[in-house]
Amino acid sequence: MKQLRELSYEESVLIWDEERKKSFLFVLRPGGELGTHKGKILHDEIVGKAEGSLVLSSTGARFRVFRPSVTDRMMKVQRKTQIVYPKDAAWFVLAMNIKPGMKIIEMGTGSGAFTILLAQLIGPDGKIYTFDKREDFLKNAKENLKKAGLEDRVVFELLNAGDSFPVKDVDAVFLDLPEPWIAISPAWDALAPGKSIAIIVPTAEQLKRSVETLKDKGFAVIDTVEILERRILVRKKEGVRPFEKMVGFTGYLISARKLL
Amino acid sequence: MKQLRELSYEESVLIWDEERKKSFLFVLRPGGELGTHKGKILHDEIVGKAEGSLVLSSTGARFRVFRPSVTDRMMKVQRKTQIVYPKDAAWFVLAMNIKPGMKIIEMGTGSGAFTILLAQLIGPDGKIYTFDKREDFLKNAKENLKKAGLEDRVVFELLNAGDSFPVKDVDAVFLDLPEPWIAISPAWDALAPGKSIAIIVPTAEQLKRSVETLKDKGFAVIDTVEILERRILVRKKEGVRPFEKMVGFTGYLISARKLL
Amino acid sequence: MKQLRELSYEESVLIWDEERKKSFLFVLRPGGELGTHKGKILHDEIVGKAEGSLVLSSTGARFRVFRPSVTDRMMKVQRKTQIVYPKDAAWFVLAMNIKPGMKIIEMGTGSGAFTILLAQLIGPDGKIYTFDKREDFLKNAKENLKKAGLEDRVVFELLNAGDSFPVKDVDAVFLDLPEPWIAISPAWDALAPGKSIAIIVPTAEQLKRSVETLKDKGFAVIDTVEILERRILVRKKEGVRPFEKMVGFTGYLISARKLL
Amino acid sequence: MKQLRELSYEESVLIWDEERKKSFLFVLRPGGELGTHKGKILHDEIVGKAEGSLVLSSTGARFRVFRPSVTDRMMKVQRKTQIVYPKDAAWFVLAMNIKPGMKIIEMGTGSGAFTILLAQLIGPDGKIYTFDKREDFLKNAKENLKKAGLEDRVVFELLNAGDSFPVKDVDAVFLDLPEPWIAISPAWDALAPGKSIAIIVPTAEQLKRSVETLKDKGFAVIDTVEILERRILVRKKEGVRPFEKMVGFTGYLISARKLL
Repeated sequence: MKQLRELSYEESVLIWDEERKKSFLFVLRPGGELGTHKGKILHDEIVGKAEGSLVLSSTGARFRVFRPSVTDRMMKVQRKTQIVYPKDAAWFVLAMNIKPGMKIIEMGTGSGAFTILLAQLIGPDGKIYTFDKREDFLKNAKENLKKAGLEDRVVFELLNAGDSFPVKDVDAVFLDLPEPWIAISPAWDALAPGKSIAIIVPTAEQLKRSVETLKDKGFAVIDTVEILERRILVRKKEGVRPFEKMVGFTGYLISARKLL
Repeated sequence: MKQLRELSYEESVLIWDEERKKSFLFVLRPGGELGTHKGKILHDEIVGKAEGSLVLSSTGARFRVFRPSVTDRMMKVQRKTQIVYPKDAAWFVLAMNIKPGMKIIEMGTGSGAFTILLAQLIGPDGKIYTFDKREDFLKNAKENLKKAGLEDRVVFELLNAGDSFPVKDVDAVFLDLPEPWIAISPAWDALAPGKSIAIIVPTAEQLKRSVETLKDKGFAVIDTVEILERRILVRKKEGVRPFEKMVGFTGYLISARKLL
Repeated sequence: MKQLRELSYEESVLIWDEERKKSFLFVLRPGGELGTHKGKILHDEIVGKAEGSLVLSSTGARFRVFRPSVTDRMMKVQRKTQIVYPKDAAWFVLAMNIKPGMKIIEMGTGSGAFTILLAQLIGPDGKIYTFDKREDFLKNAKENLKKAGLEDRVVFELLNAGDSFPVKDVDAVFLDLPEPWIAISPAWDALAPGKSIAIIVPTAEQLKRSVETLKDKGFAVIDTVEILERRILVRKKEGVRPFEKMVGFTGYLISARKLL
Repeated sequence: MKQLRELSYEESVLIWDEERKKSFLFVLRPGGELGTHKGKILHDEIVGKAEGSLVLSSTGARFRVFRPSVTDRMMKVQRKTQIVYPKDAAWFVLAMNIKPGMKIIEMGTGSGAFTILLAQLIGPDGKIYTFDKREDFLKNAKENLKKAGLEDRVVFELLNAGDSFPVKDVDAVFLDLPEPWIAISPAWDALAPGKSIAIIVPTAEQLKRSVETLKDKGFAVIDTVEILERRILVRKKEGVRPFEKMVGFTGYLISARKLL
């Protein structure tokens, strides 16, 4: 890929503390400083380094610098809402049959975490049309996409759930709404035939109503799952076992295809 | 996306039986026929239709026709080996920070299921270098990629696990091997700094040895998880509940980043 | 415990095939024979042996003989209905605060699998009152309890769901019914104050309605869970990992306590 | 069961705050007081009430009083160690084929939580022989059993892991030790033929070594599982879904039967 090897001003970087398994995401600015529990890190000392380089804080503590991965970017968006978690977002990539160049509608921009993943995957030739009824959410999400350098692939627009989408013939529609069923008919109208709708909902009742509405509208190949991500602790001496704590639930995931 | 609306000869299509929730994947050929439990379907009658169209068999049974999604293609490869399942492959998309244009090494081509997903996501400007020690696996995988129309994005090469990779400065490395630790040092040499290695292993012992080798070699930001996909049954009358059967385990998933 | 060391006629035994991990449960009879894939086993040769003894079939195949555990008995009842699975039954033992000498109502005898566990745990001084609206179920369950040698601890009675229970001041009530909510008021009337009701239901809708009815009736300390049992494969050479197949779901489990 | 209906001095009671889903366990003493976030509760006002009764604090806050269930007692022991969690303890009840009157060895008394469950289930005619190498653990556990009114069913004894057990012909052995394999041979010697050994271990490596030692020693019918308990949130308005947080892992559970 065409990308400078060296980190430069105005790009986002991730500072990683291997010892504490913690990271910080920020934009490199001339004269900038990052305050950590272990002293200050000067932005100027990071610029010009390659990814994976060692960075020392003012107290001599050791950090590593990386370009943020898409997961880092998603998890570290400025949150004004719940986000679609990476484990679920990943499932949707396949369920929505994502590929470069796609044209996608997202209804319920929220904080834009999933928008970042979609924008990365559709590439410079694709386009995300993301809608929310809250102007403050759109503004915040736009800022999050900007930090990720992906804002030119995304069109942000104010829209009430249930209203008709101003784009047609799209390759996929994603709904993240309290009442997704009201947006299923507009989604049908916007989708090219055979293409996929994807929905995330937090409760069994919403799952049921969404699936019933999909069926009534004429969608087929309906899939409904839940994804559990279990982190494993791997330690040389003490041994291997799953972590004691885990995220027990985030949402039910739905996908379906439009018939002609 | 630039894609013909109408299905045409020589492309793969998916015939879907909504009633039995079963599908058939095949290439449209002039004069071709698909035999089903419910009569014959003529390829010539499919050509020219749009996705989502109704197709009637010789006995009048109703089917729908689609372009296969990437999941359809992965699940329906000609299998000569275990495949990386979609639920796990999806997690790797984020863990490997996949984007269009990437250059990726895959060691352990197997049947090429994961290769199909990677090839779809890196787009026409990216490249997958996939290696296997078995010529028959490579040949079969190449055939699978060809059916998916993605073979020009993939370089297939014979290589023993542990041997040096003939490409350098790649954006990600994926290992699916019985002894992945022997390929970790070659992976390090091939990766650009800061980039990700991803590994799948079936047992706790392999997980442990892989993670230890990653640490010894100097990889950081190591993540180790297991993904459980739980299918939910949504029925209007009987109600909502998880399926009675589920896939209990496929593999442990590892990711890490190369330091400089 | 006072129990003969030697196996004797008229008691149930379990023949275990370690190689195939399969077992057979039957009652020892003079002159009896058990047919297996690996030849015949004569009952007369088992009588007088102790548990864990080696038993040879007519073809010389090696088996082991045991007294059946309560799990063996539950899983091998003559089934006319779904049974409460051991993983769920175990949770109820604590949720119902089972102890020897208890007086328990079970509504929905089914095949009597859970009845067997309860009858074992309450001991000779306790009593299970089990009700079903189907006489054939009661008859079959009685036969199952008899094989387990526990029928004298159980009273079987015909009763429609929702009808008043003919026993009062019981220490626990268990409901396994399609519409458990109709039996919650009768359960309240039958329970001693502070004692527990326990319910199993297969869907989210039934779970919700049951919990709402419990709250309306005045029950408190309501707990609602689902139990997943994951079998682990432990192999010296190939290594440790969860089984590839697992039971994905059996039911939602509820418990609550009666207020005064 | 023969039990006074009214709560009396010197017995343990559970005060339940339905609003906050919190409980307090303590022994009723003449003149005693319980301090809560919502004011004081006088022990003297509880005595003479029945289970499930309303109790008002000094500020008029509403509480309910119960006799503690066995789960309450287990979860609220004075902890000097990790405890066997109820979800796992429940599985062992069936795996060890517990019934009233049994004679059981427990090696690794810990805080005595599982001992409480076993002591409740074996009844007044059974006996638990529990061993630990730490005198302070035994003393604390004894105190916990005493509070549960079950100390007369339990023999506490100092013993190093791996030493021979001073009781023989027992109906079950339970091991909760860092290196359970060193106690497998003594367990064999103490068990009556055909009876069950049960083991809990926290890592895959310990699981493997335990199972291999069981096989080498001659145990059969080996079962190895993990139990996941998932709490479900049931809300009238917002709907049904699993909790967002869950306990991800506690231990691997093993059971096996002694051959002759």
